[in-house]
Amino acid sequence: MLLCEEQCKGGFMWKLTFWIVAVAVLMCTKADSVAATEPGVRVLIAYYSVTGNTEKMALGVANGAKSVPSTIVVVKRVAEVTAEDLLSSDAVVVGTPVYWSNMSGEVKSFFDNWQLKFGVFPEFKMRDKVGAAFATGGQVSSGKEIAMLSILAAMLGNQMIVVSGGGALGASATTEGDSPGIDAKELETGRLLGKRVAEVAWIMRKGK
Amino acid sequence: MLLCEEQCKGGFMWKLTFWIVAVAVLMCTKADSVAATEPGVRVLIAYYSVTGNTEKMALGVANGAKSVPSTIVVVKRVAEVTAEDLLSSDAVVVGTPVYWSNMSGEVKSFFDNWQLKFGVFPEFKMRDKVGAAFATGGQVSSGKEIAMLSILAAMLGNQMIVVSGGGALGASATTEGDSPGIDAKELETGRLLGKRVAEVAWIMRKGK
Amino acid sequence: MLLCEEQCKGGFMWKLTFWIVAVAVLMCTKADSVAATEPGVRVLIAYYSVTGNTEKMALGVANGAKSVPSTIVVVKRVAEVTAEDLLSSDAVVVGTPVYWSNMSGEVKSFFDNWQLKFGVFPEFKMRDKVGAAFATGGQVSSGKEIAMLSILAAMLGNQMIVVSGGGALGASATTEGDSPGIDAKELETGRLLGKRVAEVAWIMRKGK
Amino acid sequence: MLLCEEQCKGGFMWKLTFWIVAVAVLMCTKADSVAATEPGVRVLIAYYSVTGNTEKMALGVANGAKSVPSTIVVVKRVAEVTAEDLLSSDAVVVGTPVYWSNMSGEVKSFFDNWQLKFGVFPEFKMRDKVGAAFATGGQVSSGKEIAMLSILAAMLGNQMIVVSGGGALGASATTEGDSPGIDAKELETGRLLGKRVAEVAWIMRKGK
Repeated sequence: MLLCEEQCKGGFMWKLTFWIVAVAVLMCTKADSVAATEPGVRVLIAYYSVTGNTEKMALGVANGAKSVPSTIVVVKRVAEVTAEDLLSSDAVVVGTPVYWSNMSGEVKSFFDNWQLKFGVFPEFKMRDKVGAAFATGGQVSSGKEIAMLSILAAMLGNQMIVVSGGGALGASATTEGDSPGIDAKELETGRLLGKRVAEVAWIMRKGK
Repeated sequence: MLLCEEQCKGGFMWKLTFWIVAVAVLMCTKADSVAATEPGVRVLIAYYSVTGNTEKMALGVANGAKSVPSTIVVVKRVAEVTAEDLLSSDAVVVGTPVYWSNMSGEVKSFFDNWQLKFGVFPEFKMRDKVGAAFATGGQVSSGKEIAMLSILAAMLGNQMIVVSGGGALGASATTEGDSPGIDAKELETGRLLGKRVAEVAWIMRKGK
Repeated sequence: MLLCEEQCKGGFMWKLTFWIVAVAVLMCTKADSVAATEPGVRVLIAYYSVTGNTEKMALGVANGAKSVPSTIVVVKRVAEVTAEDLLSSDAVVVGTPVYWSNMSGEVKSFFDNWQLKFGVFPEFKMRDKVGAAFATGGQVSSGKEIAMLSILAAMLGNQMIVVSGGGALGASATTEGDSPGIDAKELETGRLLGKRVAEVAWIMRKGK
Repeated sequence: MLLCEEQCKGGFMWKLTFWIVAVAVLMCTKADSVAATEPGVRVLIAYYSVTGNTEKMALGVANGAKSVPSTIVVVKRVAEVTAEDLLSSDAVVVGTPVYWSNMSGEVKSFFDNWQLKFGVFPEFKMRDKVGAAFATGGQVSSGKEIAMLSILAAMLGNQMIVVSGGGALGASATTEGDSPGIDAKELETGRLLGKRVAEVAWIMRKGK
């Protein structure tokens, strides 16, 4: 009986220990396994494409983002993006063909709609979301950088967290000349950008 | 009779002299008074405006351009600009409100239409026309420069001759804060830009 | 003796429990109280200044960063920044006067030295550090935006995490005209930028 | 005697006519044959180069400029450009390697010296000179555009007349990857830029 008591007491002790540790571990692992209890990080890839080149890059970016576990990737044309798509995302990557050294009018109007249709300001509803850019253009050094940089500038004005990847400013492809369309190297810059964006989005999620 | 002959001869001589000189002077003054024989330099001012601020600046730019003799000034909203307006101009000044650190979607679509509707490429139909920009925005250092620079970049891609005036990159106005709307100083930057554009357009006209 | 054994056993159990829980709690709290066990987030503010205006802004940025608990702030002229300063920082804010619509030559050479003297590439040693910019210039819309944007572009090429604050692209001050020098509003944009940078640096620290 | 008088008178008339016409023709031809009486248009090509790539492009630009008759071309490293070189030029083309998505510190300091050493402001001594840019960089879309655009922005701040050529913003070369160094196509963009700059400089010369 004494033994029993001991055993009971010991058993209680063990159970108590178990539960304390279990709760502690659970609390503790929150940060690392947030995906198990919360939905994964959402990456929205919004693009405009006429020839299909920018769309192909968008899919490359999507593959990169998906390579990061528990990442939910949504790929949409800019005209189809809803307020819900935009505001529920943890990261937004915007891709555009280059028209006259800038994003296309459709992509610019998409950004304008962040306010006109989705009303992100003055609450800065996009604040702390990760942002990045990709661009396709016919010639080398003929606007892809400015297109990407102006996308990033729009995101900075929204107090987003801006990253590059795949290239110094984002992912890009030269679609005319020696290697027409999107070649494997260019697609790889897209994949690298998507992976980078998802990784930083996870860091931001865990850190907040 | 001799006298008569003399007189006739003298008269003929005088007439000949007159005509030679007249033709010479006419030829000679071609460069300086081209406006007398050719139509004046045409400056197109194309803008987008919702609140009226950018429109007010457009009128300031127009006044500046008109201050240069024999300059024909056309002021139009970007949506109303025709191929004829664009292609018959010697200079094009584009003005925009700042939306997310860039020109507005409407102005960007206007540039896209240079190709999609007006087919300026691959002949570079805008080549050698003078180009300039102006912008209005709510805050200081929140996109007016990028908006102007991206307009100038679009023009450079068209092989236009790009100039500033009124400010380091063009004319601009900060429409919120201490001095809401367009104040006299800001309107003056518009006037200076218009004058500068017309002057350079005349130099280009005479020099070609 | 049996009792003793029991008591010993019980004591052992309690001790074991204590240690397991203690370790668990310690691990668990890592993310939230990292400042207690690790040194604080380091924010380096590097600037160039001739007239003292950019230096004053730098101090404003420093005050903002210091307002975030456990943040270590280092303010240095670009010429005095060491490899240790740069590489040990969690965030780098670079400030410049505007010379010809860009950062000053001294600040550009500082960036060049990231590679030439500090060898950050090809390991991307600055990767994931937070980056931001501020600028001072005589006139409105005469280069402050481009100066800030070109600083941010340099940081993006280093795979840094770029943020704005105080203004759409960073903090800035117009030092001539109606309000010469750095006025209270402009200093406040510096403070907001510093605070923003430190906050995002903490999120990144906790999230990694 | 009468005859004599007549003849004298006639001779005088002819002489007068001759001189009037001669002066008129001389005045008249000024615009078109300026090269015959004035020195040719001066194009200054200023560059910085460590590996020799940007220097090679500079020589390509020089060849293009020289292809325009009566054009005087001066090619110098930025550190060797004198006030006389700068101020006596009709056009200035500046070339740079890309360091961190911008011109190199040496090139930026060269621009700073336009004021600090050469004192171009506030008289705008560079006003109406033609300006253009070229850049070389290791990767595609990794700063060449921004480097060129920031050179053009510096020139616009000086009220120069800015043109592109060879590419949308100027001439450029990607010096690593599939085609290391400067290949024939890239050199050709340099030549096109040089030709364009000299042609516009001649138009400006004749038109003023």
